[in-house]
Amino acid sequence: MSEKKYVYLFEEGKSDMRALLGGKGANLAEMTIIGLPVPTGFTLTTEACNAYLAASKDFPEGMLEATFAALQVLESKTAKVFGDQDNPLLVSVRSGAAISMPGMMDTILNLGLNDISVLGLAKLTGDNRFAYDCYRRFIQMFCNVVLDIEHGQFDDIVEKHKRKLSLIFDHEIPAEELKSIIDEYKTLVKEEKGFDFPQDVKTQLTMAIRAVFDSWNNQRAIVYRRLNKIEDSLGTAVNIQCMAFGNMGLDSGTGVAFTRNPSTGEKELYGEFLVNAQGEDVVAGIRTPTPIAKMKEELPGVYQQFVDTCQNLENHYRDMQDIEFTVEKGKLYMLQTRNGKRTAKASVKVAVDMVIEGLITIEEALLRVDAEQINQLLHRQIDNSVKLEAIAKGLPASPGAACGKVLFDADQAEKQGEAGEKVVLVRSETTPDDIHGIIYAQGILTVRGGMTSHAAVVARGMGKPCVCGCESIKIDAPNRLFRVNQIIVKEGDVISIDGATGNVMLGEVPMIEPTLSDEFETLLSWANDNKSLAVRANADTPQDAAKAREFGAEGIGLCRTEHMFMAAERLPIVQEMILAETLAEREAALSELLPFQREDFYGILKVMAPFPVTIRLLDPPLHEFLPDHETLLLEIAEMKHQQIQGKELYEKEDLLKQIHSLSEANPMLGHRGCRLGITYPEIYRMQARAIFEAMIQLKKEGINSFTEVEIPLVMDVAELSLLKAEIMDVYAQLQQETACELDFAVGTMLELPRACVTTDEIAREAEFFSFGTNDLTQTTLGFSRDDAEGKFIPVYLDKKIIKDNPFAVLDRKGVGSLMKMAVEKARGVRKDVLMGICGEHGGEPSSIEFCHLIGLNYVSCSPYRIPVARLAAAQAKLKNS
Amino acid sequence: MSEKKYVYLFEEGKSDMRALLGGKGANLAEMTIIGLPVPTGFTLTTEACNAYLAASKDFPEGMLEATFAALQVLESKTAKVFGDQDNPLLVSVRSGAAISMPGMMDTILNLGLNDISVLGLAKLTGDNRFAYDCYRRFIQMFCNVVLDIEHGQFDDIVEKHKRKLSLIFDHEIPAEELKSIIDEYKTLVKEEKGFDFPQDVKTQLTMAIRAVFDSWNNQRAIVYRRLNKIEDSLGTAVNIQCMAFGNMGLDSGTGVAFTRNPSTGEKELYGEFLVNAQGEDVVAGIRTPTPIAKMKEELPGVYQQFVDTCQNLENHYRDMQDIEFTVEKGKLYMLQTRNGKRTAKASVKVAVDMVIEGLITIEEALLRVDAEQINQLLHRQIDNSVKLEAIAKGLPASPGAACGKVLFDADQAEKQGEAGEKVVLVRSETTPDDIHGIIYAQGILTVRGGMTSHAAVVARGMGKPCVCGCESIKIDAPNRLFRVNQIIVKEGDVISIDGATGNVMLGEVPMIEPTLSDEFETLLSWANDNKSLAVRANADTPQDAAKAREFGAEGIGLCRTEHMFMAAERLPIVQEMILAETLAEREAALSELLPFQREDFYGILKVMAPFPVTIRLLDPPLHEFLPDHETLLLEIAEMKHQQIQGKELYEKEDLLKQIHSLSEANPMLGHRGCRLGITYPEIYRMQARAIFEAMIQLKKEGINSFTEVEIPLVMDVAELSLLKAEIMDVYAQLQQETACELDFAVGTMLELPRACVTTDEIAREAEFFSFGTNDLTQTTLGFSRDDAEGKFIPVYLDKKIIKDNPFAVLDRKGVGSLMKMAVEKARGVRKDVLMGICGEHGGEPSSIEFCHLIGLNYVSCSPYRIPVARLAAAQAKLKNS
Repeated sequence: MSEKKYVYLFEEGKSDMRALLGGKGANLAEMTIIGLPVPTGFTLTTEACNAYLAASKDFPEGMLEATFAALQVLESKTAKVFGDQDNPLLVSVRSGAAISMPGMMDTILNLGLNDISVLGLAKLTGDNRFAYDCYRRFIQMFCNVVLDIEHGQFDDIVEKHKRKLSLIFDHEIPAEELKSIIDEYKTLVKEEKGFDFPQDVKTQLTMAIRAVFDSWNNQRAIVYRRLNKIEDSLGTAVNIQCMAFGNMGLDSGTGVAFTRNPSTGEKELYGEFLVNAQGEDVVAGIRTPTPIAKMKEELPGVYQQFVDTCQNLENHYRDMQDIEFTVEKGKLYMLQTRNGKRTAKASVKVAVDMVIEGLITIEEALLRVDAEQINQLLHRQIDNSVKLEAIAKGLPASPGAACGKVLFDADQAEKQGEAGEKVVLVRSETTPDDIHGIIYAQGILTVRGGMTSHAAVVARGMGKPCVCGCESIKIDAPNRLFRVNQIIVKEGDVISIDGATGNVMLGEVPMIEPTLSDEFETLLSWANDNKSLAVRANADTPQDAAKAREFGAEGIGLCRTEHMFMAAERLPIVQEMILAETLAEREAALSELLPFQREDFYGILKVMAPFPVTIRLLDPPLHEFLPDHETLLLEIAEMKHQQIQGKELYEKEDLLKQIHSLSEANPMLGHRGCRLGITYPEIYRMQARAIFEAMIQLKKEGINSFTEVEIPLVMDVAELSLLKAEIMDVYAQLQQETACELDFAVGTMLELPRACVTTDEIAREAEFFSFGTNDLTQTTLGFSRDDAEGKFIPVYLDKKIIKDNPFAVLDRKGVGSLMKMAVEKARGVRKDVLMGICGEHGGEPSSIEFCHLIGLNYVSCSPYRIPVARLAAAQAKLKNS
Repeated sequence: MSEKKYVYLFEEGKSDMRALLGGKGANLAEMTIIGLPVPTGFTLTTEACNAYLAASKDFPEGMLEATFAALQVLESKTAKVFGDQDNPLLVSVRSGAAISMPGMMDTILNLGLNDISVLGLAKLTGDNRFAYDCYRRFIQMFCNVVLDIEHGQFDDIVEKHKRKLSLIFDHEIPAEELKSIIDEYKTLVKEEKGFDFPQDVKTQLTMAIRAVFDSWNNQRAIVYRRLNKIEDSLGTAVNIQCMAFGNMGLDSGTGVAFTRNPSTGEKELYGEFLVNAQGEDVVAGIRTPTPIAKMKEELPGVYQQFVDTCQNLENHYRDMQDIEFTVEKGKLYMLQTRNGKRTAKASVKVAVDMVIEGLITIEEALLRVDAEQINQLLHRQIDNSVKLEAIAKGLPASPGAACGKVLFDADQAEKQGEAGEKVVLVRSETTPDDIHGIIYAQGILTVRGGMTSHAAVVARGMGKPCVCGCESIKIDAPNRLFRVNQIIVKEGDVISIDGATGNVMLGEVPMIEPTLSDEFETLLSWANDNKSLAVRANADTPQDAAKAREFGAEGIGLCRTEHMFMAAERLPIVQEMILAETLAEREAALSELLPFQREDFYGILKVMAPFPVTIRLLDPPLHEFLPDHETLLLEIAEMKHQQIQGKELYEKEDLLKQIHSLSEANPMLGHRGCRLGITYPEIYRMQARAIFEAMIQLKKEGINSFTEVEIPLVMDVAELSLLKAEIMDVYAQLQQETACELDFAVGTMLELPRACVTTDEIAREAEFFSFGTNDLTQTTLGFSRDDAEGKFIPVYLDKKIIKDNPFAVLDRKGVGSLMKMAVEKARGVRKDVLMGICGEHGGEPSSIEFCHLIGLNYVSCSPYRIPVARLAAAQAKLKNS
């Protein structure tokens, strides 16, 4: 039986062995191979870790033997002996997973020190104090990491001794005192654990390896993995490496450096170092590190070598490197290198610069920038360098940060906003009645409502920050204030909200304004050259449409007509239309709405021409346009109490009755979408007329527009046939009136499972398709978004039933299967039929990749997501070609 | 080019040519072929009709020529001549579609009469008056059917002449007077149509054929087809047949007869006849027909021949026949035969009797009874022989008829019902608080709520009549009455409701009690021998379970545990559990519920053992168990008004807040089903414990029960894994405590599209599956049942977007596709995994057939539907084998 190889000397590894050796181990191996000065060492593989964890913490067969054999190699290379009293070999033991998990795993330095070898270290360095200080630190670190004894207990001992000698700093403690501290450390260990601190160095190493393996499942690591979606099954490697000492005098030192500025992306060595120090000292914060540029003066002997090595590493890895190094008595040692974390801004600049420098290809540059991250560059951000306390947390409904005076009603918000005040509109939930206030507010904060609530949808459309469903806030309307926990926030007090996190903060917090760099534009133009998917915008107004074109939209994939119904001057007419008791009354109201709609469409089509505009006919249930039922109920009760009789009361009672009769148990699955068009064909006819009249007007002005008239919520081809006939009839009438030929198509959304199952039939009528994945997710999973995101999705994420919120990241297995089926069925009937997506997934990178994979023609997303979508579309193609 | 054959002489046809010749034509042909005395004739095919309608009412080429050729054959056979003044051939022209549409199409008798041939008829019969009366009737009938002139105008002319001569009856009008009536008829035609009544007999025939074809699309026919789901594309045939005259003296007559009693199924000749009369006279109701048995005395010459012919026909067609005949001067003519319509009771008896008589096979008998129809036999019915006026119409929520005193609250209903009064509980909608009243009511009537409302579900479970969502009723609670239109119904007034039609009637209406005959039992036992599907019951109580076994249930396919939570003494504990703020509080409330649940399960399992019982863990959203939000809101407003402060108000306010926080935008897609089990594992753990403890108790009594513990609303295997582990943990605990091994399985419902798309994954954990097609229909189509059935399904049916209400008849194309996919995926992983259906479709014949076709193991339906399901399951197998 051939034994598995669990231990690799650095020179046996390579950078592409990350999965086996971990990122750190693979890079140490790579640096060794390319001849960089790396302290010699070896790596225990992630397979060893997994075998150990699977076997209830039994080391796999042969692992320890191989470890000690590798240790012998180290001894012979360094001519040192592990645990020796003359020339002792000391090692560091570090964890290193395949995916970088900085700060998550535990590290032990100076392993190999005991009562004997400490003498050797003293001899070797000629520094008694140094040796005993190393020993003391090692015991403390080992006991903390391996034996789980708290740091504080060791610190108490040190403090006691410092007090005794009236010393302030640790480094002032003399060697003799350190020895007695070490004795007390040993006593502490015995008391705490019932056994002696291990003097056998192999036992030390074995215990340390075990501790590193165990640390894979410590709480911090588990939480980090969950947050960063790292599989639990990867396991960690263990790197065992000869120590290099940065604390052996003024020709020694330690530091970290980035090969480029990780914040701006500028090409400059960026980092800091400390002379005569070990890594710990930097972390402990006792001494302030020096900027890396000063190294030239302070460690001139190695500076140029270091600069060259950094450049070397960047060239070798073809990416910005994050490097740890130590200088021991004038000799440079590279301890670690990895691709450096960077801001969105830096990420873009580094990628573009490196293409210009010839270091990487355009394709590589496109793949190297996190598409999701560049969203940051488009919104005002809270300055993350400042630590802020949130007083409440809601749903991150629309990204960006806003700050302003708290106002509780839309009229005030409009008035003060118009007057130039910065205001944040705070409401239980918003309704169409609040739209004028929303327009003038910096941001919106609501107590109720989810990611698809009115506030959220409107705010996203406007690119305005919004925090929704912040249920810990209790609005006390009569007193014009809100309470959250013990805090009272009055009308006019300033708050800040972060629509990217859902945080609500007191006062004005520091913001970073968005800047779109030249590199950003360059990267996006490269993205356009490398993608198959077109990117369209969801836009309901000419303003949104213009913003969308600015960001490079290639059309509108979803223009919702209902938001046009919500404007203050139109809502009364809409309500009249809804409450009409006869067809004639309804048609009268509709004919009042016609000019408004025509004007809306005219504006949008004009901005977007000659790109296509998908106009969705009225979709939401009609009761959404009516006043709030509960408020009305209480008003009536109040009037009755005051014994107010007469017309006003009767009208209110009548209205309540009508609201009652329109109200639904499950409005999401109710009388909406094309069902409205089927029960009230006159509504869709008016909308079709408004579209065609707008197009005719444009045509007269010499502008050729193209519309895709979209029927929502279709579940059967018969619905589409019927409504398409109505639309074509309106067109035929207009053609007779004006003899004007227009360019348009009639199609439908795919947002119900039945539509996906019968897309072949629907394709007989539909000239285009657009996946409405918000609703398709709701129906496929049976998740009402408004209810699920507040109530059980967090629990599902926590219990790992789902990996992502299915409303944020498309559920490929469920929703995706239906989409794939629908595409195949549609294309089976109409080979080249246009198919897109207009749910919010259309702006999310993983979902966009899926859309690319199943062969959609375009994704459509909110204007501010277009850059993300363009990049993600290019990445999807590059990753899958 | 070979011309299509559009005309068939009777002797050229056969009974299996219904599609081409229509039912009537095919049967006339068949009777001719087997040598029965049928007046000679021929048939124009349905293809001729369809060609005519398709060509915008142009007769297809060659059709008229073939018609006249066939007419010549008739002339030579009868030695009569069409339009002849000595020996005229007269014909009837009748429609006849492939599917019998009685009373729907128009008929013309005596065609061929004109001013000349009427003389021939007079000569031939030696009866001047007879001839002119025939002519008059023919003109009137022709003008009405073909020329669309109202009957009334002709009647006015007749009346005028009768007044002039002071006559009472038509048959008293002398021949001369008839001639002047005929002249006035002709004038009327000229005035109305601008042309003369056609004297050319071939023109008469051509026009009559055209009229029959056109009548396929008259309003009555269209409505009938829609009601009876007959395809519009079938078209009608036209039968042209020599006249036989039953009105040529006392040795003539006409009649109709059934070969068995169509009401009871008894084997006896059943029908009536009139001496010296034509069919019209029977219809006109001027003379009272004589029971068929009297024919022996009144027409002795042909009676035995008629009896033999009837038996002959029944034997030939092997089914009960509905026969029309005429005796002309002692000679019997058979005019029509068809399978007779019959009541459910007769249908069952005839089928079973015919098997016993050796006339048909058991398989034929099973296929011959309409499964849906036998449902009638299980419920008290309103006597359909009485014509009743409904004052209102709601949804037919639970079949059967009830009548009783109107009561508006459950307490009264309980009190008076317990005292022996018959009461109908009338509520806006019912809640769990009303359950005690429902138990004692004869039936339930609600103003709001759909087919799945509380009232509907509870009533169906109890087999109690219920009409829901009867929105035209306005309850005036303070005055203890309800209004509907102008009618006021006070508390204590008697009403009747028909849960099969949704009708509400004033007063006590005549009822028919259900009786289960021996034949019914026989038929169902045959059904059991001929079906693959098992039939289980949806039952929530031991009473329901017992009823289910009585009807032959082979297990329980759905035992809903939430109804157990709704009982009056338990609801407060349930509310405590829901409103608990800590796990400890919730567990305390749950432990109070445990004994109740155990007792419930004990009772059901005991009744049903050894058959399996599928117990679904808690499914509905928790807010369903809390008081009504609106009522509470108004109560609080009222208390504030009266300036009532203190504990009661605060508690109410607190409760309102909690109801608010539990309330959902779309509860159907909200925090329910397994999502409850995942957020509150302690609830499912309690239920699992109650199940296992009940099983242990039974086992101690020597009863082996088998439960299928069912997790509702699963959309991903991870939900099931997690909850199955909880259940197995409870079982493991109990095993440790009692060392008792139990027989059970853990499985899930398939009621979300995502579950159907990922059934292969779910099958790794699920030991059985049950399709919850109510919810699966809601999510697949995006139809909230509560909203759709009232608001847009009626419009969809009307506009023919859907053929059936998808909640009544399974949508094979959409929901069915997903089911088929799920079955394939499940069986791919677990070859023989048990799969059933427990949605209401489980009791509907077409849906049951689909379940058979996709290979389910069982259907489950309410106890009262079990006989229907058993028969439908057998039919499904017989039809598809």
